[in-house]
Amino acid sequence: MIGLAQGETSSGVLTDINPFRRVADECGALLVVDAVATLAGVALNVDRQKIDICFSGSQKAISAPPGMSPITVSPRAEEAFRTRKTKVQSWYFDLTTAMNYWGKDRLYHHTPPISLIYALREALRIVQEEGLEVRWERHRLNQQALISGVEAMGLKLFVEKLEDRLPTVTAVRIPAGIDDLKLRNQLLDEFNIEIAGGIGATKGQIWRLGLMGFCSQKPFVLQLLAAMEKVLLDQGYRMSPGAGVGAAVQAYAHAKVPAGAAR
Amino acid sequence: MIGLAQGETSSGVLTDINPFRRVADECGALLVVDAVATLAGVALNVDRQKIDICFSGSQKAISAPPGMSPITVSPRAEEAFRTRKTKVQSWYFDLTTAMNYWGKDRLYHHTPPISLIYALREALRIVQEEGLEVRWERHRLNQQALISGVEAMGLKLFVEKLEDRLPTVTAVRIPAGIDDLKLRNQLLDEFNIEIAGGIGATKGQIWRLGLMGFCSQKPFVLQLLAAMEKVLLDQGYRMSPGAGVGAAVQAYAHAKVPAGAAR
Repeated sequence: MIGLAQGETSSGVLTDINPFRRVADECGALLVVDAVATLAGVALNVDRQKIDICFSGSQKAISAPPGMSPITVSPRAEEAFRTRKTKVQSWYFDLTTAMNYWGKDRLYHHTPPISLIYALREALRIVQEEGLEVRWERHRLNQQALISGVEAMGLKLFVEKLEDRLPTVTAVRIPAGIDDLKLRNQLLDEFNIEIAGGIGATKGQIWRLGLMGFCSQKPFVLQLLAAMEKVLLDQGYRMSPGAGVGAAVQAYAHAKVPAGAAR
Repeated sequence: MIGLAQGETSSGVLTDINPFRRVADECGALLVVDAVATLAGVALNVDRQKIDICFSGSQKAISAPPGMSPITVSPRAEEAFRTRKTKVQSWYFDLTTAMNYWGKDRLYHHTPPISLIYALREALRIVQEEGLEVRWERHRLNQQALISGVEAMGLKLFVEKLEDRLPTVTAVRIPAGIDDLKLRNQLLDEFNIEIAGGIGATKGQIWRLGLMGFCSQKPFVLQLLAAMEKVLLDQGYRMSPGAGVGAAVQAYAHAKVPAGAAR
């Protein structure tokens, strides 16, 4: 089995799936893709990219309530499950019994979270209405406007190459002399905006700005940039007033907005 | 570890926890109680009965949406978790890491299902408002009225002794000559009432009538008995007309209704 996270939220890195598929083919391995932070926000073609197991979360770019994890399994992966010799340790995570429940046998496996399933269905209806490709393009456009803004404010991105940057999470280096926690708390208290700090090795080094699903929209990008300017200014950060918002507005003005994009 | 289900939904059996606690004390074992079908419906005193691990479901007698499993752990069980030598196989079910998330460290473990947690809080507020003891008594009263009704209809109970009968699930033997699936489908189609069939050894042998939380109420008991009479009659079953509902009404009329009971 070869596994990867397509979108790594801890660093804001987007990983190209195809080279992993090529190695998996060489080894005869199953390819497992964590699409938690990418499904319905970033280009993903489960069948065409021959992903054997792909899973995600309901609460990120799909923008349904948290509590569910959509998963899909290829016939080859299913065969590997069905022919395994050792017992699955967890009843709950034994997909073979779960599949007997989903399938025509309807063999009881667990109590489904009905209210969440209705909510997921409605969220997927909204995704369908917008169109997957249009939605991917919307995430990319809002990310680019955000990047134009933060760079115009003199902030540095954590991920250097454009093609490695995850459209749903943008990691920004914290400038010298700025108090991380104080800034994030002020953003939350004063603007009701929550951004994430770094974890592990990047703790205190980066901020992570999420633009996922419903949250990936022009008004939020501009609000975030304006709010960032205010809280940075309060800590003595120097920048040309309005530079971030101005650059993002320019990015939007010159962008080709996809027809049918929700926002 | 010694484990038991306090309420066994597959058979409608209520099990007394105390003898198991005595054996656990003799062996120095941890006592684990499955209270899925009993919490907030049947007498249960986790601390007084010295239950080391007790878990339940949100969707039964608590009557919150499905998708959560409340769990409580004694200091002794927690110590056993913390000092175990082998690694827990499942990240998701590793309570030591979950406890570090719930505790003051707030170490990330999983994305909580926020909307369900709000719903659970509201359901528990309603439980609190009624009062646990009053709620237990309500479940017992509605069960007794249901039993009076089904017996007056000539049906036999699957669990013979009164003290072994689970207040939240009443198992009734299917009379000879009655088509199980046809009757249950008719109940659902004609009355919007779902009752369960038997599983495993009791498949086709019993019906399981659930009266849990919100559903344990006088109007539902009387409706169920009236509906059962109609669908049984349609299959040629013979009984004195209105006998079931009449007996249940008598049971209610002579019962001491607990002050403050919700229904």
